[in-house]
Amino acid sequence: MGKKVLVVGAVALGSKAACRLKRLEPDAEVLLIDQDEHISYGGCGIPYYVSGDVADASELQSTSFHMLRDERFFKDCKDIDVMTRTRVTAILRNEKQIKIEKADGTTSLLPYDQLVIGTGSRVRNLNIEGQELGGIYSVGSLRDAIAIKSAIASGQAGTAVVVGAGFIGLEMAEALGDMWGIETTVVEISDQIMPGFVGPELAKMAQSHMEEQGVAFRLGESVVRFEGEDGRVARVVTDQETLEADLVIIAAGIQPNGELAAAAGLEVGFNGGILVDERMRTTDPDIYAGGDCVLVPNAITGKPGYYPLGSLSNRQGRVIGDNLAGKESVSPPVVGSFVVKLFETCLCGAGLTLKKALEEGFDAISVRMCQLDRAHFYPTKELMYLELVVDRSTRQVLGIQGSGSKGDATVGRINAVAALLGRKPKVEEISNLEFAYSPPFSSAMDIVNALGNVADNLLDGRMHPIGCEEFAEKWEEIKRGDVCLIDCRAKADAKVYEEKYPGIWKGIPQDELLGRLDELPEGKPLVLICNTGVRSYEAQLNLRAKGHRDNVTVFGGVAMLKNWGMDI
Amino acid sequence: MGKKVLVVGAVALGSKAACRLKRLEPDAEVLLIDQDEHISYGGCGIPYYVSGDVADASELQSTSFHMLRDERFFKDCKDIDVMTRTRVTAILRNEKQIKIEKADGTTSLLPYDQLVIGTGSRVRNLNIEGQELGGIYSVGSLRDAIAIKSAIASGQAGTAVVVGAGFIGLEMAEALGDMWGIETTVVEISDQIMPGFVGPELAKMAQSHMEEQGVAFRLGESVVRFEGEDGRVARVVTDQETLEADLVIIAAGIQPNGELAAAAGLEVGFNGGILVDERMRTTDPDIYAGGDCVLVPNAITGKPGYYPLGSLSNRQGRVIGDNLAGKESVSPPVVGSFVVKLFETCLCGAGLTLKKALEEGFDAISVRMCQLDRAHFYPTKELMYLELVVDRSTRQVLGIQGSGSKGDATVGRINAVAALLGRKPKVEEISNLEFAYSPPFSSAMDIVNALGNVADNLLDGRMHPIGCEEFAEKWEEIKRGDVCLIDCRAKADAKVYEEKYPGIWKGIPQDELLGRLDELPEGKPLVLICNTGVRSYEAQLNLRAKGHRDNVTVFGGVAMLKNWGMDI
Repeated sequence: MGKKVLVVGAVALGSKAACRLKRLEPDAEVLLIDQDEHISYGGCGIPYYVSGDVADASELQSTSFHMLRDERFFKDCKDIDVMTRTRVTAILRNEKQIKIEKADGTTSLLPYDQLVIGTGSRVRNLNIEGQELGGIYSVGSLRDAIAIKSAIASGQAGTAVVVGAGFIGLEMAEALGDMWGIETTVVEISDQIMPGFVGPELAKMAQSHMEEQGVAFRLGESVVRFEGEDGRVARVVTDQETLEADLVIIAAGIQPNGELAAAAGLEVGFNGGILVDERMRTTDPDIYAGGDCVLVPNAITGKPGYYPLGSLSNRQGRVIGDNLAGKESVSPPVVGSFVVKLFETCLCGAGLTLKKALEEGFDAISVRMCQLDRAHFYPTKELMYLELVVDRSTRQVLGIQGSGSKGDATVGRINAVAALLGRKPKVEEISNLEFAYSPPFSSAMDIVNALGNVADNLLDGRMHPIGCEEFAEKWEEIKRGDVCLIDCRAKADAKVYEEKYPGIWKGIPQDELLGRLDELPEGKPLVLICNTGVRSYEAQLNLRAKGHRDNVTVFGGVAMLKNWGMDI
Repeated sequence: MGKKVLVVGAVALGSKAACRLKRLEPDAEVLLIDQDEHISYGGCGIPYYVSGDVADASELQSTSFHMLRDERFFKDCKDIDVMTRTRVTAILRNEKQIKIEKADGTTSLLPYDQLVIGTGSRVRNLNIEGQELGGIYSVGSLRDAIAIKSAIASGQAGTAVVVGAGFIGLEMAEALGDMWGIETTVVEISDQIMPGFVGPELAKMAQSHMEEQGVAFRLGESVVRFEGEDGRVARVVTDQETLEADLVIIAAGIQPNGELAAAAGLEVGFNGGILVDERMRTTDPDIYAGGDCVLVPNAITGKPGYYPLGSLSNRQGRVIGDNLAGKESVSPPVVGSFVVKLFETCLCGAGLTLKKALEEGFDAISVRMCQLDRAHFYPTKELMYLELVVDRSTRQVLGIQGSGSKGDATVGRINAVAALLGRKPKVEEISNLEFAYSPPFSSAMDIVNALGNVADNLLDGRMHPIGCEEFAEKWEEIKRGDVCLIDCRAKADAKVYEEKYPGIWKGIPQDELLGRLDELPEGKPLVLICNTGVRSYEAQLNLRAKGHRDNVTVFGGVAMLKNWGMDI
């Protein structure tokens, strides 16, 4: 007879911990307990099930070899017992027992030698008036997903409001709009999409792209109440307007289910998430926890952070399985790598955003740039947009965020930098990061290297750029004639704009600039621009070498501005 | 008047060093000297120019904004002088002068304060009888490329032989076969393609793929002579056969042009490559060198290695530019990341292959696996194949190689591991590497994490696998009845094979195995197989827990074997 291990919660973390333990220690008696009927499913796949990309909910609960991960699977394939529809109501640590309550109301006590808490998260209750109306869903579990798809498939929805513009909200908006043709509006309380994950420029680029695909956005608005007819939602009232909606998806954040642990006297952190050490042990050495119910240290700040990511849960589950079996594995601090596909583009990142870095007290700035994702002479290529957050005084790289095609090129770059982020790399290491090069895959100077170079130039005081938002402000000054815009591209490229903005947009190709200095307006500040920022930087250096210091370039140039949604 | 900097060689390294220096120190007087007429071109793009993907050779010599990087460009945009068709015949270090010889035979001396050597590489002279015949080309410069394309375009080639199955050889074979319909055979002296870059399994997978696309291979053969008719090549005679060919591309390795430096008394290494320190200085502190003519330390072995990579040249050029201007930048040791597209697949890697690791004295093994490149329930996905080379005693990861679709997914994984390789990561760090997860981009347990896990299981003695080649040998024993094959997949999957190989191929699904132990043949060794190796590993653990130790699994299972070209 092996030791008794109880695992509370049988989605990603719990299932992985149980299976790993059994592989290392076949004698262990392992019981998985879950309050739901669906277990061991890929929650991140829910938007793709709702969209129809994944035809059947059971696919999210199946192995790659199409075996349903149900009770029978765990028993026959893994020799693990499973108890579903069972709530764990208390952990009696002194007795090393847990108290359970079955669906029929019966309760009992189960003894354990070791316990794993993988209770996950729940959708944050917004306590909005009318939230109990029919047609209002959250995306907290496979059960929710099945209900949403069933409602859509039966044709009940023509207009939808998604509350929250984080991952799930945006993925759901795409699913509703793209696959079901539902007129969808996303309401977000913050002034940008993906707050906390990317900076405002990248956010606006992705938002513009989604708007082109028909999704509407209401940023900086908060939902005041839901109004219904015959018990079903009909309108969403915000602090600024009323939106028609016969379907509402609430995706405004989740919170850890840490109460069971807290009630048992285990230490929890700022949002109720369970605190664990690097071996994923709670403050009770016989109790492990992981996944969406815990806080883990951020690799850059060292502080506990909340990272409810399915991939992290799986890796942490394995570490717990190891430790249960006596193998002292550790789960390293987290950089929070993420990616979200949004129609034909994606947003991804790792580490800190500029805003977060400043809040954490870093002397942070960010540099932005765009460049083709492969050799410029290769027939297929797209622009990629990256932002690098760095500390001015130490030159440490704090984070990276990006946007690019829906393919793997952008996220591949983020993953490479993410691999280093926990090691506190300097800007120079990003400049010299080795990317495999061949024209169908990258440029000889990869965009990430170039991004490091831009940071280096800025930190050394050679480059003086502005971002899209600052350009938009300067544009007013340019139109007033207070600032002069110099287009450093070839004549033909600048000409279109010169004709559109006579007297405002002035083309002087970079290679002619030093010979045409007399054409620059005396005493006026200059904005130097080109297509992606390469030539305008060169022009800036040319001018500064001649003593002209009152000039700025634009991060990513015209390409960046256009992608950002600037109407020039 | 600024200092005089002479740069010998104006392709990747020299141009980049010159431009960077001028950006940092506008006063410097910089002269770029090249023996060729074409300068500053992307040599890695040559196969795409030959194939027709790139229509005009000038595109390889243009900036991303379509400006030809010729003498005028360097003068007007960069304030850099250029001297083409000029050979540098000697460096007079005591006098700080170089001796040059122009195309018209005139010679002169030029003084320098600092000198940069970026003389690149040349195609190794194989000294094969008949190599001077018409129709025989190497791929050493843009000039060569233009000659090849002109020969093809004029319809002179119906059958081609490519000598050498490294990057350039394979890319050229694809270009000839795919775009021009030329019947192409690759002759390689080694017993695999891409020797030194990937192991034999991945090599065979890519070879099988190329064979399906119509490229023929002759491995382990060496060219003895070329035979011609009317001064043009007609046949390639190897040590084993005679091949018809009216076009021959020699791509059998390159060597550094280190002679100029060596003659000046600068230290060179094992293959004549110039030795440089981390700041890219030669043994003369006023002379820098980089790119294809230097040796740089390998990040894993610490020993000087030869890495003629366009991307590295660009990054090194920037480091040289910095140092010329007094900014003390360093170029870190190299892991040699590479990627090559081969029709619909790619090969890529970083660090050491298993063979190289063993040669270097590591107690090395490699683990191989395949897994889908995105969530298994996501509608589009493909199998990816990875190999991880690890040191058994220290658990240090020494290298990674991979094969997958022609897209960015595989190379993205390689780049992420490459970012860490120089930091001597342990297997555990690969298991916990943070990959951004979302179903359209990866699995919750990314293939790289899973690869680390496989290595961990193997190093801990839990997993006992064999590779494709060993399976092919065992297959003979299986057919003789000496070894029993157990297919651990679901009944339906195994059935096809049971019917094809009655009495040899036996299906026992993993979840039924423990209840059917009596069906296993007494005293016979077992080979456990499934589709990718997940269930056969579980079955192996099941059996070993019951005391059955004489069994092995197959890395990557049936999927790997089939991709490798095993006819089962």
